[in-house]
Amino acid sequence: EGSMSDPDERNEFVEPYLTWNAMRPQLPCKLSDLVTPAFIVDISIVKRNCELMIAKAKSSGVRLRPHVKTHKTIEIAKMQVGGDLNNGIVCSTLSEVSFFASNGFTDITYGIPITFMKLLPLYQISNKTGCKISLIVDSVVQLDELKAFFGNQKNAHFGCFLKIDTGYHRAGVDVKLHKEIGLEIARRISQETNLTFRGVYSHSGHGYHALDTADAQRISFEECKEAKLFTEFLRENSINCETISVGSTPSCGSSDQFPGATEIHPGNYVFFDRQQVQAGACKEADIAVCVLTRVIGHYESSGHMLCDAGSLAMSKDLATQDDHLGAVEGCDLVLQSVSQECGKLMMKQPENGKRPAFNMDDHPRGSLLKIIPNHSCLTAACHPLYYIVENDTVIDVYKPCRGW
Amino acid sequence: EGSMSDPDERNEFVEPYLTWNAMRPQLPCKLSDLVTPAFIVDISIVKRNCELMIAKAKSSGVRLRPHVKTHKTIEIAKMQVGGDLNNGIVCSTLSEVSFFASNGFTDITYGIPITFMKLLPLYQISNKTGCKISLIVDSVVQLDELKAFFGNQKNAHFGCFLKIDTGYHRAGVDVKLHKEIGLEIARRISQETNLTFRGVYSHSGHGYHALDTADAQRISFEECKEAKLFTEFLRENSINCETISVGSTPSCGSSDQFPGATEIHPGNYVFFDRQQVQAGACKEADIAVCVLTRVIGHYESSGHMLCDAGSLAMSKDLATQDDHLGAVEGCDLVLQSVSQECGKLMMKQPENGKRPAFNMDDHPRGSLLKIIPNHSCLTAACHPLYYIVENDTVIDVYKPCRGW
Repeated sequence: EGSMSDPDERNEFVEPYLTWNAMRPQLPCKLSDLVTPAFIVDISIVKRNCELMIAKAKSSGVRLRPHVKTHKTIEIAKMQVGGDLNNGIVCSTLSEVSFFASNGFTDITYGIPITFMKLLPLYQISNKTGCKISLIVDSVVQLDELKAFFGNQKNAHFGCFLKIDTGYHRAGVDVKLHKEIGLEIARRISQETNLTFRGVYSHSGHGYHALDTADAQRISFEECKEAKLFTEFLRENSINCETISVGSTPSCGSSDQFPGATEIHPGNYVFFDRQQVQAGACKEADIAVCVLTRVIGHYESSGHMLCDAGSLAMSKDLATQDDHLGAVEGCDLVLQSVSQECGKLMMKQPENGKRPAFNMDDHPRGSLLKIIPNHSCLTAACHPLYYIVENDTVIDVYKPCRGW
Repeated sequence: EGSMSDPDERNEFVEPYLTWNAMRPQLPCKLSDLVTPAFIVDISIVKRNCELMIAKAKSSGVRLRPHVKTHKTIEIAKMQVGGDLNNGIVCSTLSEVSFFASNGFTDITYGIPITFMKLLPLYQISNKTGCKISLIVDSVVQLDELKAFFGNQKNAHFGCFLKIDTGYHRAGVDVKLHKEIGLEIARRISQETNLTFRGVYSHSGHGYHALDTADAQRISFEECKEAKLFTEFLRENSINCETISVGSTPSCGSSDQFPGATEIHPGNYVFFDRQQVQAGACKEADIAVCVLTRVIGHYESSGHMLCDAGSLAMSKDLATQDDHLGAVEGCDLVLQSVSQECGKLMMKQPENGKRPAFNMDDHPRGSLLKIIPNHSCLTAACHPLYYIVENDTVIDVYKPCRGW
């Protein structure tokens, strides 16, 4: 289990330029056997995060339709659905839809408002794999595009959600300002024979800016309330919603009840990150991932150390309340700035004080550090391979889906 | 030429989840045939940028050792060296070294200060391919590590540069403060039989913060002066530098003379970007790349449009003087904020004024936009495939090196 010593068993990983392959470590191996930077996934924490979200959905009486965009791996998606490939998932790219549909998932929602160009690929994926694919719609003109498409592809069929805006103001029909438009769209979806109306879909992305757990709970509660009010309005107009789908990781991580909703669709919770701690969605011990890096230089006169994790290994996402690119586990060092392939480590700047000095001899050249990412979705996306770890032993390597 | 209609000819691109393959457009094709987001490279501009840098090096009497980290493709690296695979290049990761060495390049400098862990992979690559690999060293302790390594690998041999800090203060020996340390390192490199001392290497990364062309020129001039002073000091101590290597794209783009240097090593100039325009290194017409995206929604009540280029297609790098993630070619729209797979388009905020309204009907749903990136190195790194364009016709697809 986990051993990949025979090169022939691993040809899916063989690309000429992947150093890990050039080195061919036997699995299991130690963290210190890895070339850095490397994306490390503590799989016990991922499993626990997945089980807790399944349990939370169950105890609060909603279904869980997990988003897979944070990790984009078959292995972790299976943990999110408790092994049930018929449990719906949400994807954020066509390549994800193709990847998960080709690997046995049977109910996939493409979570970005649909445009004409993406209909044919989605139909082809659905045709080839038998996967039921659902779309997200938030304007009347999309129904015209769908009608045009179905004119040429008479056998195509999709599920369809009406996307509603309950406060994030990125996408969706604003149900406070424009509920009549929402009704019209829901009606047209219901009337379209090549579509099955599945209900409403809201994403409380503003939960990412929550100040603490209570604030995240308030946002979650508001989202549920608005979604429920709107679906009652739809019902008064003879349109029933099978599904009222809400949530983001901040709202689902912080809340235990989703009154009025029938479904939640968080994604980041598999890994969590520093931003989620700040938003009150988890504790530091729930963060499942880090970037493993090595100290590559001491620069006493500038007061910094360099490590081999730069912007390509971390992303340049700043956490909401910080000025740095990540925090080193187990000490007060932070990744203060990054170039493409290296990062400057300094002591964390206190809120109203001078940056303390630190003893670089505590971190000799070559020593390993774990950097906790600000935003794990973007950091994970930097890495073509994930190193799967249990008790600091590398037991497996996952290859995520990439591209569009 | 450029046609890839036979699937068997293209198996290097076949990964199950790449939509482009699922769609299999025949090449050449139109931009509108591409699924978005897509990274577009105007190859005529790349060729021109490469030829101009070769000509500039020639006319100013220095060699050009181009950095390949911005694009990481064999095709463009060949343009950078005018087809001469014996012309040295600089890489920023082990995977790049492996990739370019395996594809015929014979003189590669690994541009990050060397650490022990990376010596064995570099030696293996060198052994397997015959490529001459050079290291970057900036501390005495690295020489101890190298000595330990050569104790076990008696036949290993590397070229070696002393990295000097001429003002950027990221890495290198600060030659204003510590020239005696620099001398000691140079001496020890020269004495090590498994190393060949090649000279000094400086990176004027602070050129990225230049205010304009004159400022970038001043930084370049200072760098050359400091490097020259230090190598004169080495010569007084009987150590000759074959190579005095300087530069970054801001300094090499803005300057025509590099007095005292024998070599320049810019990289970003193949693509350029908005940041380089700001730093005075190029004009907008020199930018060779963009992210092709489609409008996916009009949200009148929030005053924004959505497009399908988000943080995973753009990176989250903010240009030095801007507050947004990229500018739309041919109009005043900017990518004001990004989620993972979509971005908010708004009118550019004037310096001291109100954001103007705009007519969304000018950009109907589904219409194509080209977003000029702030920092092309990071944007390119987001993309597993580059779509190669001439006169807005896609004529080829390049697959860059990824990972570590």
